[in-house]
Amino acid sequence: MNFVHKLTTATRQNDSLLCIGLDPDTELMPAKVGILEFNREIIAATRDLVCAYKLNLAFYEALGAEGCDIMKATLESIPDNIPVIADGKRGDIGNTSKAYATGLFDILGFDAATVNPYMGYDSLEPFIDYWDKGIFIVCRTSNPGSADFQMISCQADGQTYRLFELVAARAAEWNKYGNIGLVVGATYPEEIRDIRVNYPSLPLLIPGIGPQGGDLASAVCFGIDAHGERAIITSSRQILYSSSGDDYAPAARRVAADLRQQLNDCRNSLKTP
Amino acid sequence: MNFVHKLTTATRQNDSLLCIGLDPDTELMPAKVGILEFNREIIAATRDLVCAYKLNLAFYEALGAEGCDIMKATLESIPDNIPVIADGKRGDIGNTSKAYATGLFDILGFDAATVNPYMGYDSLEPFIDYWDKGIFIVCRTSNPGSADFQMISCQADGQTYRLFELVAARAAEWNKYGNIGLVVGATYPEEIRDIRVNYPSLPLLIPGIGPQGGDLASAVCFGIDAHGERAIITSSRQILYSSSGDDYAPAARRVAADLRQQLNDCRNSLKTP
Repeated sequence: MNFVHKLTTATRQNDSLLCIGLDPDTELMPAKVGILEFNREIIAATRDLVCAYKLNLAFYEALGAEGCDIMKATLESIPDNIPVIADGKRGDIGNTSKAYATGLFDILGFDAATVNPYMGYDSLEPFIDYWDKGIFIVCRTSNPGSADFQMISCQADGQTYRLFELVAARAAEWNKYGNIGLVVGATYPEEIRDIRVNYPSLPLLIPGIGPQGGDLASAVCFGIDAHGERAIITSSRQILYSSSGDDYAPAARRVAADLRQQLNDCRNSLKTP
Repeated sequence: MNFVHKLTTATRQNDSLLCIGLDPDTELMPAKVGILEFNREIIAATRDLVCAYKLNLAFYEALGAEGCDIMKATLESIPDNIPVIADGKRGDIGNTSKAYATGLFDILGFDAATVNPYMGYDSLEPFIDYWDKGIFIVCRTSNPGSADFQMISCQADGQTYRLFELVAARAAEWNKYGNIGLVVGATYPEEIRDIRVNYPSLPLLIPGIGPQGGDLASAVCFGIDAHGERAIITSSRQILYSSSGDDYAPAARRVAADLRQQLNDCRNSLKTP
């Protein structure tokens, strides 16, 4: 089963656009709970509410060798029907990107990965060649500095683009296996709309709702495809750390269920005019 | 001692512009030798010939948890006077980049890291804030696809730039602690020259000589600063895998010594017209 199929199946099964980011932060976690136990409890409490999980590789790398083991064990505790995205924004020359892709897809078994386009096609090709995996190319990110380069006006193919638009155009050209998606931050809803209009079927990974200030309703409204799918709305801290007490798992479930409902209310309001 | 000081000291002490990339590839290594043993033997055989070592994080991540331990032990076996660069080309939103920087600098103890500029200033700031570490911003890379975006013509500040030139200009603006450098591939010597002319004191990390086709002489000639320094010429496979037999360490030493000599011949030829 390829990534898009797995994503669509999970989206329908759990009636959800919500992706939970499993970003362990020991300063925000309940003091006595280990990271693996924390992740497992969060997964057990939310596995019927999500279309995907996303692991931010930085937070595991910051733990050293222990982080590798925790990441692997976390992946093993995620049900097989839920796709898992490796958020590492990798990208390097060919043989190096091949090593990254091998590590993430073959060794760890992720279903998808985020990649950085700055080094061009051959830096992404080793990822794209995994035709059954999802490859999310970083396009327009949710952080304030994203405008530094992504919004720069540039010329290519006799046209004027903003750089993120050129990245989106190239991503669509490179999508020979239908496994490419884009990362587009919820903080820039107009850009989500432009991208969805131009690329009706690309899966969009949309971070930035909640603490980063992105509007949930416009992320859904502009991000979903014609079937109300292929928008993966990610949330992490807001869910994981809603309680720092012993009730962190049921508390996370309540917040996740509420977010899923809000996302569904938005897409249902679009279905019935 | 900050990174530039440490780099300059090692460059002078070992009379070398050569940086060896420790990129373990079990298919190219002698069959019976473990990766850590291999790295340690290579380091012991070349520690007086280099200005820096560089670890390509992808090759360690591809080994899973074991790779983390091997990376840590490899770092511990590098003499304190030789700076070590983490080549991971990281870059993400603020709190994520902070986690990457913590992992590389505080947990593992690298002296420098490569970072990807696509997400803009705030994605690099957590790295830059380590004022005593070296931050190499990926600018013009050695791979064929680097032209896809890096060579695109773009407008900013009322001027026309190629994207990599804009990245270099921003890097220089952001260099408040004097700890920023650039990654510029040896396969594009004209761009190395342009960057060195415009930014006389930025350290340049120059991959791509040898197998990737970059010319060693022009990398040195265009890359060095006015003192014949601050050009870090990296080589990996050419040195590491020059013999697949038991003599891999002395063989690596011979190739490294020869490369160092070639690099020095180039810079000496410039000193005495």
